[in-house]
Amino acid sequence: MKLIQAQQLMTSSLRSLPQGGRIAEILAHSVNSVNPAHCIREHLKRAGCELVINGDKISLDRYRRVLLIGFGKASLPMTRAAANIFSDKPIQGITIIKKGIHEELSEVPQNIRIYKGGHPLPDRDGLEGTQEIIDLLSSITEKDLVLFLISGGGSALLTAPAEGLSLEEVSRLNELLLRCGASINEINTIRKHISRVKGGRLAAQAFPAPTISLILSDVIRDPLDMIASGPTLPDPTTFEDALSLISKYHLEEDIPSAVLAHLKNGELGKVPETPKPGDPVFKQGYVKLIGNNYQSAASAVEKAASEGFHTLHLTSCYQGEAREIGHFLGAVLRQMATTGDPLPRPACLVAGGEATVVLEKGRQTGRGGRNQELALGATKVLDNLSDAVLLALATDGNDGPTDAAGAVVTGETHQRASSQGLSLQAHLEEHNAYAYFDALGDLLKPGLTQTNVNDLIYLFTL
Amino acid sequence: MKLIQAQQLMTSSLRSLPQGGRIAEILAHSVNSVNPAHCIREHLKRAGCELVINGDKISLDRYRRVLLIGFGKASLPMTRAAANIFSDKPIQGITIIKKGIHEELSEVPQNIRIYKGGHPLPDRDGLEGTQEIIDLLSSITEKDLVLFLISGGGSALLTAPAEGLSLEEVSRLNELLLRCGASINEINTIRKHISRVKGGRLAAQAFPAPTISLILSDVIRDPLDMIASGPTLPDPTTFEDALSLISKYHLEEDIPSAVLAHLKNGELGKVPETPKPGDPVFKQGYVKLIGNNYQSAASAVEKAASEGFHTLHLTSCYQGEAREIGHFLGAVLRQMATTGDPLPRPACLVAGGEATVVLEKGRQTGRGGRNQELALGATKVLDNLSDAVLLALATDGNDGPTDAAGAVVTGETHQRASSQGLSLQAHLEEHNAYAYFDALGDLLKPGLTQTNVNDLIYLFTL
Repeated sequence: MKLIQAQQLMTSSLRSLPQGGRIAEILAHSVNSVNPAHCIREHLKRAGCELVINGDKISLDRYRRVLLIGFGKASLPMTRAAANIFSDKPIQGITIIKKGIHEELSEVPQNIRIYKGGHPLPDRDGLEGTQEIIDLLSSITEKDLVLFLISGGGSALLTAPAEGLSLEEVSRLNELLLRCGASINEINTIRKHISRVKGGRLAAQAFPAPTISLILSDVIRDPLDMIASGPTLPDPTTFEDALSLISKYHLEEDIPSAVLAHLKNGELGKVPETPKPGDPVFKQGYVKLIGNNYQSAASAVEKAASEGFHTLHLTSCYQGEAREIGHFLGAVLRQMATTGDPLPRPACLVAGGEATVVLEKGRQTGRGGRNQELALGATKVLDNLSDAVLLALATDGNDGPTDAAGAVVTGETHQRASSQGLSLQAHLEEHNAYAYFDALGDLLKPGLTQTNVNDLIYLFTL
Repeated sequence: MKLIQAQQLMTSSLRSLPQGGRIAEILAHSVNSVNPAHCIREHLKRAGCELVINGDKISLDRYRRVLLIGFGKASLPMTRAAANIFSDKPIQGITIIKKGIHEELSEVPQNIRIYKGGHPLPDRDGLEGTQEIIDLLSSITEKDLVLFLISGGGSALLTAPAEGLSLEEVSRLNELLLRCGASINEINTIRKHISRVKGGRLAAQAFPAPTISLILSDVIRDPLDMIASGPTLPDPTTFEDALSLISKYHLEEDIPSAVLAHLKNGELGKVPETPKPGDPVFKQGYVKLIGNNYQSAASAVEKAASEGFHTLHLTSCYQGEAREIGHFLGAVLRQMATTGDPLPRPACLVAGGEATVVLEKGRQTGRGGRNQELALGATKVLDNLSDAVLLALATDGNDGPTDAAGAVVTGETHQRASSQGLSLQAHLEEHNAYAYFDALGDLLKPGLTQTNVNDLIYLFTL
């Protein structure tokens, strides 16, 4: 899997700055620091016949076989890197990747089967792959070591509806959940209770074999039991929680009746609960977060410091309306550029998280993504500032329904756009950030990066 | 004029923290650092027969009289402090203060006349005071030294409609401007072109006497020509700008016809433009910013550092939707409390600016102000955090149409409120932050402070 090159992140504004290349290098470095294969190799090492995970050692002699079970957008590079580590052992594996991601499948060992599942809505291929995983796990013993390689998107890709529910019913529910305004944590609470694998049930399938879960986090604040709906972690949520969310979002009438009946049966104890903290199925389970937004932001800051920038890592957990966050961070950059607070020039401040764009109902809107809109929200307050740049980047390379990952704003953006007849106000009102930055040549377009630790906003003074 | 005491800033949450008193002291210190009398004394000093303004010296022997002309919410303490500095000289003065502010009038020298004008809408008393100022200035010569003492609110208090316009017409225009969504800079561009005093015209009235303008800024980014509509500064805006704003906000049909006619006459050159940069009336004018948000935030940071906190001054120019800024700063505080980025414990991070609250049209709303709503916007993301506090404070002591200046949030706020049956979601939806924090005893209620440098948000980890 190739690393992102600085060249892929150059834009019109960056090319006009003498330090533009260095800025692009810092961005590339922060994305590459959470490259899935890199994260696997950093956290999972071999010392002869021992496996070393962050200092802990596991003797491999006890195991006749290593099973690699991957699901999520980054599962193929994670699986490939893990397979390399066990190249001297009998391995077997199944990995479910997202349809449409171009992958070099040739380097994958023969005994790893690859499925391409639907995302964000689950499909039959994901279902088939998941059934294969369940079948493979059904034969294991204590002499098998199971590695779960988990990344964002796994919740849709690893899909096995609870007994009595169909894929169509689960898909319909997912559609409703994604549209109703529920948070990802709320959506996953419900998903966990209509599945044979989510919410710790996959760990139960692997019992009594020891398991190692390596997780690349795409959920703000890294609630491990929520990433890919936590198939290998204890589930603190209940059927009752799921039902109260159905009621909170007034979905009782719209969700398939079989789903509602299933949840109600669960509440009555007629369907077993997901395994809870303390359940014996987790006793031999080792869970490790191997990459997240914090790590990516910290890498950016470290690289910038080594290049002579004053640095600050402001947060890795922002959420909220994209243009408002852009406006606020623009004010931070303006302050930095004019008074040297909080950092004197040259400076690099990094903020990580994931914004949202709330579209007004019934209004025609343009194209864009949360990072492009965040950049557009910063444009006015940065107007006329010298040697200051704000860059907003989706680490997976995919910002909203566009082929861009984000955008770049400087103190000249507003004037340049105006002189081309582009109205900032109109593009904001129409949520049309893509058109605005596309015309300026200031979209970030590195292509899909195969990792995902949410978004990073970089503020530079030069 | 009394300084704010820490005791006036204590709330239920602060009382429950061992460091609560120190936090209140830091807040009080930052407000007192921009106490108007203090700012006057800091920037205007006497050395015998010389007046010293930031190193520049003005010999007072040349002047037979000192005129003190004040207008704005802080004009009385500014006038009083200035009068003290010239107690050995013949002085004469007029100051226009805001109606309803309780002032100790007894300490004002007899030869200073005080008017109490209407704010935010100008009234007859402001008009009368302004006419007195014009009359006083009409008699001056080069042997008079004029001190203009300018603070926020001055735009409404100093009011003299252009010839041919009535107070009612100007008031009607002001009402429309305050409601139409125009920024303060846009509003002032129009105000400057229907006045005999704004936009540099007051400086023209004082010509040929030397003038000193001492300005306390209540406008984000301190555009001096916008504070109180810049009566003593060159005006870069034109009648044409004013007319295009009338058109931008579709006010042509609603504003009084005499106002529209006046602006059109101005555009045609039939009414003289406001004095522009380079105009001789500014040649003997000395302008000095004596207090602003930056200074107040910097004082907070300095005081906190002396108390052992790690400190950061993030910005002094944020603007935007209050709850979103609260959400973002809450994420910054959460990061600080959990990983020590950007500051390890104990830490104090300060952000200054002024947020807005956009109310949904036609919906019943509760009570609150921008700072209370900002605090409410931070409540959820701070839930369950230990030893972390966010405080949002209007430096003038007046947050929206309430008797509070802001509010305090900790990691316990959400739970405490829930246990009292207060729904965070409902209070957010109803813009009812006052009721929420009032029930918790966490409103900041220092009373009116007589200064105004916008708002300060303080993030503490302990």
